[in-house]
Amino acid sequence: MPFSQPLPLQSGAAIRDYALSYETYGRLNADKSNAVLICHALNASHHVAGVYEGQPRSEGWWDNMIGPGKPVDTDRFFVIGVNNLGSCFGSTGPMHVNPDTGRVYGADFPVVTVEDWVDAQARLLDALGIRQLAAVMGGSLGGMQALCWSLRYPERVRHAVVVASAPNLNAENIAFNEVARRAIVTDPDFHGGHFYAQGVVPKRGLRIARMIGHITYLSDDVMNEKFGRQLREGIDLKYSTQDVEFQIESYLRYQGDKFSEYFDANTYLLITRALDYFDPARAHGGSLQQALAQTQAKFLLVSFTTDWRFAPARSREIVQALLDNKRAVSYAEIDAPHGHDAFLLDDARYLNVVRAYFARIASEGATA
Amino acid sequence: MPFSQPLPLQSGAAIRDYALSYETYGRLNADKSNAVLICHALNASHHVAGVYEGQPRSEGWWDNMIGPGKPVDTDRFFVIGVNNLGSCFGSTGPMHVNPDTGRVYGADFPVVTVEDWVDAQARLLDALGIRQLAAVMGGSLGGMQALCWSLRYPERVRHAVVVASAPNLNAENIAFNEVARRAIVTDPDFHGGHFYAQGVVPKRGLRIARMIGHITYLSDDVMNEKFGRQLREGIDLKYSTQDVEFQIESYLRYQGDKFSEYFDANTYLLITRALDYFDPARAHGGSLQQALAQTQAKFLLVSFTTDWRFAPARSREIVQALLDNKRAVSYAEIDAPHGHDAFLLDDARYLNVVRAYFARIASEGATA
Repeated sequence: MPFSQPLPLQSGAAIRDYALSYETYGRLNADKSNAVLICHALNASHHVAGVYEGQPRSEGWWDNMIGPGKPVDTDRFFVIGVNNLGSCFGSTGPMHVNPDTGRVYGADFPVVTVEDWVDAQARLLDALGIRQLAAVMGGSLGGMQALCWSLRYPERVRHAVVVASAPNLNAENIAFNEVARRAIVTDPDFHGGHFYAQGVVPKRGLRIARMIGHITYLSDDVMNEKFGRQLREGIDLKYSTQDVEFQIESYLRYQGDKFSEYFDANTYLLITRALDYFDPARAHGGSLQQALAQTQAKFLLVSFTTDWRFAPARSREIVQALLDNKRAVSYAEIDAPHGHDAFLLDDARYLNVVRAYFARIASEGATA
Repeated sequence: MPFSQPLPLQSGAAIRDYALSYETYGRLNADKSNAVLICHALNASHHVAGVYEGQPRSEGWWDNMIGPGKPVDTDRFFVIGVNNLGSCFGSTGPMHVNPDTGRVYGADFPVVTVEDWVDAQARLLDALGIRQLAAVMGGSLGGMQALCWSLRYPERVRHAVVVASAPNLNAENIAFNEVARRAIVTDPDFHGGHFYAQGVVPKRGLRIARMIGHITYLSDDVMNEKFGRQLREGIDLKYSTQDVEFQIESYLRYQGDKFSEYFDANTYLLITRALDYFDPARAHGGSLQQALAQTQAKFLLVSFTTDWRFAPARSREIVQALLDNKRAVSYAEIDAPHGHDAFLLDDARYLNVVRAYFARIASEGATA
């Protein structure tokens, strides 16, 4: 959907003549009270559920969660998936033409924040005629957007579902992002972010970034269980510093290669920076409790015990700050082995928690 | 010290006409029973203690631990520091000339293992006329060498002091090594490991490798305490994906830059690979208990609660396997905030544990 009105950004800049890609599932009811907005994390898009006709293996990234009869039941809810500004899956991003210059944005794409994304999403809802969301939901960076919605548009959110998220990044989180960014920008094929014109892609940097990401998405336990010290071939060591020797190396290289084929390097920088910047407590002298005083929604928070990227303690900070504000908050800490990735996986307890919560939302109706 | 006799390596290859750089501190006693060998980790050398005359800030890397009146008291012990084969601080390494070809080794330097290092160290002791060590001691990868000594030369080790170490790398440890290696070998300046002839250094890769390393050396806690979300300049955000915004970014970049100025890229590959390969249980069907049945030494193991690179649980595996073999083993788990780095830092409890242990060794004498 095209937007001609400039969107003012947190940085002070603005972006104009941008478009947002989105998909919807289910039907908006007569009083437009059953809309659920799904916010995506780093490597995802507006395609949250279902498959594209004639395209096998085109399931949406949260297809186990969203659909007819699923925890977020599209027989009851009108679900909206939207690709964020700066992403590389359809919405306006660094690979598009800057209307101010007539040249591809590249590194000149404005730095966008979680707040900016939420503002853009709000305009999309305006265009769809949706005044209030039954729920806004997301995992990881998507959870930050859900939290941000409850702060920025308190009256437009009845429920916020924040999964495997955090009230901000800690130093270690920022550190991993920074190493990934440095790998990308120091790749000679990055050309200061204007690599499109050169007909190259900083694949070396993207591979490294993705490998680092994958390590932080998985738990120690699941890595040891899936890969351990298993060799890739046979049982004899090859004694090589550059050949693949262990299965875990093979897995990481494969993930890095795959990612470098389709993900945009400038998008990677933008999205990790949005993660770094998110910190609603910052404007309140560091007090998350004060920040969350603005919220009016009810909340569901979910965390996973082995998630060391956004550990349960980070979710509990949000829960505590909400409770201190006497907000209605449900919290589930799921004992899952899969680390941060767990929020995308099929854990029956997790899916049931979300199912039960959305059943409650459905039963409340718009008057809740 | 030069060695002309070829050293057979685990890989099946051999290395000839190599030299080992070493330093000694204190005096070897008459019956040569007071020798302590110190094994180094990734980024260290034979210069373990003291300063070089006229060179301020040239303290050895374990100067807080080793010296006159220090926990490893050089008034009582004859301490030997040795730089390992393949390192870049004096001993024969990839930047030296391969006597078989007359060209610089580069990527052709043979892959060396912890076992190979220990064998080379044993030859150095032979040359020094030392039959048996009062103790062999190391932290991290150095601890693996100490453990390996107790297995490979059981009768030559009275005590093994294994600090912040592990019986092998787990999948996550290997994964971090692999990402660092990929960053180096995919740097266009690596030239397949033969960059010396090109007059370049793969600094981009080395920087990334070091940044990743630093993240894993520090605990989450200490990172949050030292850096947190503190901005580098002032209190206003700059909204940039490439400029430094947070202190932690500045710290990591600085560490990466510094490292890339002096550390050899091929050495980085070799040493991380030696870490990957170390796994004494492997030859015993995965049983560490069976592997450690060969030991005759007494042991001190030390771990640090916030070390997530080599967590206390990894040290406890060694302790348990030793106890199962009815070996004499002391174990201290130090409640320190500094993560893996703690083994190099001044924690009074840690230093006192080592001091007390070495006092006991001294009182035992050679007959123990």
